Amino acid sequence: MTCLTLNASAEDGHQLWLRMAPVNKAKVTAEKTSATIDIARQELETYYTGSQVTLKLDATMAEDDGYRISGTSDNVTITARRDAGLLYGSYDLLRSQHPSSISHRPSTITESHPAFKLRLLNHWDNLDGSIERGYAGNSIFEWFHLNEQLISEYARANASIGINGSVLNNVNASPKMLTTQYLKEVRQIADILRPYNIRVYLSINFATPMALKETKTADPLDKSVARWWQKKVREIYKLIPDFGGFLVKANSEGQPGPGDFGRSHADGANMLADALKPYKGVVMWRCFVYGANHKGEDRVKQAVSEFKPLDGQFRPNVILQTKNGPLDFQPREPYSPIFDQITKTPNMAELQITQEYLGQSRHLVYLAPMWKEFFKSVGSKAIGQWAGVAGVANIGLDRNWCGHHFSQANWYAFGRLAWNPLLTSENIAQEWLQLTFGSNPQFVATMSQLMMESREACVNYMMPLGLHHIFKFDHHYGPEPDGFIARYPLEWCPVYYHKATKDSIGFDRSSKGTDAVSQYRPDLARTYNNINTCPENLLLWFHRVPWTYRMKDGSTLWESLQYHYNEGVLWTEHARNVWHNKMRQYVDQQRWQEVDQRMQHQVENAREWRDVCLKYFGSFVQ
Amino acid sequence: MTCLTLNASAEDGHQLWLRMAPVNKAKVTAEKTSATIDIARQELETYYTGSQVTLKLDATMAEDDGYRISGTSDNVTITARRDAGLLYGSYDLLRSQHPSSISHRPSTITESHPAFKLRLLNHWDNLDGSIERGYAGNSIFEWFHLNEQLISEYARANASIGINGSVLNNVNASPKMLTTQYLKEVRQIADILRPYNIRVYLSINFATPMALKETKTADPLDKSVARWWQKKVREIYKLIPDFGGFLVKANSEGQPGPGDFGRSHADGANMLADALKPYKGVVMWRCFVYGANHKGEDRVKQAVSEFKPLDGQFRPNVILQTKNGPLDFQPREPYSPIFDQITKTPNMAELQITQEYLGQSRHLVYLAPMWKEFFKSVGSKAIGQWAGVAGVANIGLDRNWCGHHFSQANWYAFGRLAWNPLLTSENIAQEWLQLTFGSNPQFVATMSQLMMESREACVNYMMPLGLHHIFKFDHHYGPEPDGFIARYPLEWCPVYYHKATKDSIGFDRSSKGTDAVSQYRPDLARTYNNINTCPENLLLWFHRVPWTYRMKDGSTLWESLQYHYNEGVLWTEHARNVWHNKMRQYVDQQRWQEVDQRMQHQVENAREWRDVCLKYFGSFVQ
Repeated sequence: MTCLTLNASAEDGHQLWLRMAPVNKAKVTAEKTSATIDIARQELETYYTGSQVTLKLDATMAEDDGYRISGTSDNVTITARRDAGLLYGSYDLLRSQHPSSISHRPSTITESHPAFKLRLLNHWDNLDGSIERGYAGNSIFEWFHLNEQLISEYARANASIGINGSVLNNVNASPKMLTTQYLKEVRQIADILRPYNIRVYLSINFATPMALKETKTADPLDKSVARWWQKKVREIYKLIPDFGGFLVKANSEGQPGPGDFGRSHADGANMLADALKPYKGVVMWRCFVYGANHKGEDRVKQAVSEFKPLDGQFRPNVILQTKNGPLDFQPREPYSPIFDQITKTPNMAELQITQEYLGQSRHLVYLAPMWKEFFKSVGSKAIGQWAGVAGVANIGLDRNWCGHHFSQANWYAFGRLAWNPLLTSENIAQEWLQLTFGSNPQFVATMSQLMMESREACVNYMMPLGLHHIFKFDHHYGPEPDGFIARYPLEWCPVYYHKATKDSIGFDRSSKGTDAVSQYRPDLARTYNNINTCPENLLLWFHRVPWTYRMKDGSTLWESLQYHYNEGVLWTEHARNVWHNKMRQYVDQQRWQEVDQRMQHQVENAREWRDVCLKYFGSFVQ
Repeated sequence: MTCLTLNASAEDGHQLWLRMAPVNKAKVTAEKTSATIDIARQELETYYTGSQVTLKLDATMAEDDGYRISGTSDNVTITARRDAGLLYGSYDLLRSQHPSSISHRPSTITESHPAFKLRLLNHWDNLDGSIERGYAGNSIFEWFHLNEQLISEYARANASIGINGSVLNNVNASPKMLTTQYLKEVRQIADILRPYNIRVYLSINFATPMALKETKTADPLDKSVARWWQKKVREIYKLIPDFGGFLVKANSEGQPGPGDFGRSHADGANMLADALKPYKGVVMWRCFVYGANHKGEDRVKQAVSEFKPLDGQFRPNVILQTKNGPLDFQPREPYSPIFDQITKTPNMAELQITQEYLGQSRHLVYLAPMWKEFFKSVGSKAIGQWAGVAGVANIGLDRNWCGHHFSQANWYAFGRLAWNPLLTSENIAQEWLQLTFGSNPQFVATMSQLMMESREACVNYMMPLGLHHIFKFDHHYGPEPDGFIARYPLEWCPVYYHKATKDSIGFDRSSKGTDAVSQYRPDLARTYNNINTCPENLLLWFHRVPWTYRMKDGSTLWESLQYHYNEGVLWTEHARNVWHNKMRQYVDQQRWQEVDQRMQHQVENAREWRDVCLKYFGSFVQ
C-alpha cells in the first residue's frame, strides 16, 4: 500500500532517477572538507538509510575518480584518491541502497574505477537557445539569464552517474562563444559544475579570430592567429582555471577549418593544442568530415582517408573524436573503422544520446544495446586505449529534461557505460527503472524486457537488414525512401544509399564496390566483404543484393524486408498494449499518460515507416 | 537441393502425414498372414529404408494393441500380441525413420502400449451427407455411393496414428441409420476398416423402433422394445461380427431418451447394454445433457446432477462419455467434474477435434495443448481408469480432408495422445510438421512454436480470462457478446454467460453463486471458489468480478481484458507475417497459399473479435 500511495503521487519526471526520500539519519565524518566532499556529505546525511558513513582519502589508490566502499550498510567507509571519488562512491552507495536494487551491497568491499578518463556530454546548444537535434525544448544554458538552480540540478544528475565534463555549445559553433561576455557566463556555469567534478569545455569555430575581425586570417600557421588563440586561452583559464579544452568541428558541413588555408587537420589541431598545453587543456578534434578533400569518395570512407595519413602528427593533447559509425548515427551502423586505423593518436568515441534518427523524443528506444554492440565490435583492447567517450546530450528545458520519460534512460545509460562499459544493458535498464519509477519486480521485469527489445524493433521498422539513411531530409524523423533533391549533396539523398532498382537494392561497399570493407581490420574486412558471411543485419550496408537473394533462413530478401518491417510495427503495438493496459498501476498518472501518448505516436509512426517503405520498395519488386 | 525440389512439387494435402516416398527395399518376413499383417508387410516393403523386417507374434505380451521394436534399423523385429500391434509397430517404424525424426530410433528396444483401449473418432455426419460442425465439406461416408478408395485411405491414416474405432454418424442420429439398407452399407465400411484394426460403431436414436413404427413405444422397460433392440443387434452382428457398439445422445437438446417414458439414463443404457452384451458390444452414453430434469440449474452442473445418483446402476458394458469441459467445447473450460464424480462406471472423454468454437477451418489453432491441459487437470490417476477417448472428427470431402492444412495436426495429435497422453504437444507438433511438410529444422522450430502458441492466442482474442459462450448463435464462428434471443433457451444466450453490467462481469459459480465449484474434488473446489486462488484464465468462469478488480499483476480486470484481446490479435498478425514472409520456401505453392489466405482471414476475424467485444464491454465500463 505504501508503494501504491507513493507511486500515485503526482510526478513530472523532473527528479530523474534521483527520487530518494529524505531520511536524515546518517552521521557522516570526513577528515577534510571541500565543496565536493560537502556535497557528498549532504547527500548521504539526507538520503542514506544507515547510521554512519566515513569518507576517507587514500593517496595510495590509483590516480583516478575511483572509490572503494567497505564495511557494513550501517557503518560504511568510502575511500578514494580524490574528493571526486568520494562523491562518486556516495552516489553508488545511495543507488545501491534501493530496496530491491540489483546492485545491493553485501557487506564486502567494492572497488570501482572509471574505464575512461573523459566522460563528457556534448551539448549541441546554440547561443540563441535552440538546440540542433534537440527534442526536449530549448537549451538549459540560458545565456545572460542563467538558471543556477537548474544548472545545479543538471550537475548533480551528471555527477550521480559519473559524467565529468560538459561541452556547453554546438559543434557548429558561433564565434561569439569566445567573446568575453560569453566567457563570463561560462565561468558562472563552471563555478556551479565544479563541485560536482564536472569540467566545462567549449566547441569553437575554427575561424573565430577572423570572424571577430581580430585577425586577418585563421590560418593556423599564421603567427598572429596562434598568438590570438594563446591570448584567448589565457583569458579563459583566468576565468576558469580547470577549463577542459576545445571541441572542434573543422572543414565539415560548411564549418571553417585549416583546410580553408591549405593546412591539414593536424596543423589546425596542433596550433590549438599548443595554446592549451600550459594549462593541461585538450583539443577534441572531430573526424566527422566528408565532401572536402575526398569529395566523391564513398562518404563512410572519408574519415579514414582524411585522418589516417595524419596519425602520428598530432600533439599529445589532441584527441580524435569520432562517431560510433562511419555515416551518421543511424539506428544500426557498423563501427567506424577509424577506431582500428588511428593508433598513434588518442581516440574518443562520440555517441548520440539524443535520438536524431531513432524517433527523437517520440519513440521509446533504449540505446544501451546499440552502444554495447559498438563497444563489442571495436573490441575491448582498442577501447582500453580510448581517452574517453562523449555523448551528444538529449537534455532541454522540458520539465522532464528529455521530452520522453524513457529518454532519460539513455542519458543514464550513457553515464553508467562511460564509467563501466562492461555493465550489461539489461542491468542498467533495471537499475534505472527501479530508481526512476519504482521497484515492483513485475514492472521492472516487463519494462526492462521491452527496453531491451526496443532498439531492434526500431531498426526493424526504420532500416532493416542494413538499409540506411532513408530518413526524411533535414529533420530526420520520418521515412523518405524516394528522397532526392538535386541541389543537395548526393550523399544527403536517400536514393544514393539504397540504390533500389527493379533487380536489386543496397550499397556495394565490398571489394568490388567502394571497397569500404578494406578499412576494417583484416578478419572483419573478410567477413564484411563476403555476402555469405556478412551479418545479415548489415547486408544492404555492405552489399548490393538481388530482391530474390536467399537469406540464411531461405526466405528472399524482399520477403525478409517485409517480415522485419511488420515485426517492427507489431512490437510497437505490443509495447503500447503492455504499457497501456498493464503498467498503469505502477506509474504516477502524469508520467504514465505522457508515455502512453508517445507510445501511440510510435505505433502510428512505425506503421508509416512500414507502409511508405514497403510501398516504395515494392514498386521496384513488382 | 533435393529437399527444395521435393518441396516445390505440387501438393494438395490429401496425403496428410503419409508422404513417404516408395523405397521398395525391405524384405519382410512374418510367421503368418492376415489382412492386417498383409497391410503391415506391404507398408514396410514399400516404404521402409532398411533391408529386413521380421513381424512376430508373442502370446506372452500384454493383451492389447502394443508392440515391441528391436534390432537395428537395417534388421528390425516387430513383436506384438496381436496382428494390430504389428501394424501399429510398422507405422511407428516408418514414422521414426524420417530423416531428422525427433523420435529417431537408436538400436535399442522400444516397447509401446496404448493408454486407452478405445481410441475413437466420432463423426457427426448426417445421412444426407451434411456434417454437424463440419467445416471441410460433406461426409466421406456417401451412403449408397461409397467411395471405397477414400474410405480405405481414411482407415490407413487412422491406423497410422493408432485410432481403432469410428462412430460413423451424428449423435443427433436418424432412426434410418439402423434400417437394413443402411446397415448393409455400414457392413461395407466395416469390411474396409477391419484390416486396419478399426471397429465400426453407430450413434443411435433412442426412439428408433418407435420412429420406424416397429414398436408402439421406446420405453426401455417395455419388453417389446427390448426385444426389438435384441433383434436389431443380432442383425447388426450378423453383418458385422466385430461391431463396436452404440453411442447415445439421449434426452439432450431435443433428442429422445428414456426420460420421455419416465425412465432413467441407467434404464435406457442398460437395456441397450443387455442387447449388446452377448457380442461384447458397448454402449457409450453421453453425459452432455441439460435443460431436462435439472432445468434452471446452472448448465455446467447438470451432468453431475443427472448422472452422479445413477453411478453404480449401469451394466459393466456401459461407458459414460463426457465432453472435456462442463459447458460445450469452449477454447478454454475447466474440466468436467464428472471425471471426479463418476467412480463406479467407466468414463470416456469426448474431445472435439473439429474446431466448432475455435475458428472452424479458418483459424490455425493447434489443440494438443488444450487437451493436455485437460488431462493434467483431471489427473493421471483418474485418466488411467478411463475406458477410452473419443474425438469429434474434423474430416470431410475436402481434398485436404480437414479444410485447413493445419487442422490435420489436430486429427494427428488426437490419435497420438489417445495412444499416449504423456507425449508432449510440442513433440507431436514437430513430428507432424516433419511428416506433413518437411524436416527443415528452421521450419519445424518456427512453426511448432507458432502452433504451441496458437491456442492461447485464440483464447486471448475469443474468450480471455474465462469469458465464455459469447459466440454467435447457431454457427458459433464470430463474436456476439450482446446475443439474446427470447425464444431460445436462456443458456444458449451469450448475455447469460457474461452477465456484464456497469459494475462487473462474469458468472458467479462460487459457493455464493451457483456453487458449481462444489462438484470438483475438495482441493480444486477450494481453489476455484476463492477469487484470489482461482486461476485467472478461468476467473470470469467462476466469479463475478468488478471491472476495477485488481488482477495479480495489479492491472484492473478491464485493462487485462483489453490487454489479452490485443495480444491475441497481435499474435495472428505475427503468425501471418512469419508464414507469409518466412515459410514460403519450405512449403509447396498450393498448401502455402491456402494456409496463407486462411491466416489473413484469421487476422481479420481476430480483429473483429477484439473490436466487437471491447466496444460492447467497454460500453458498460464507461
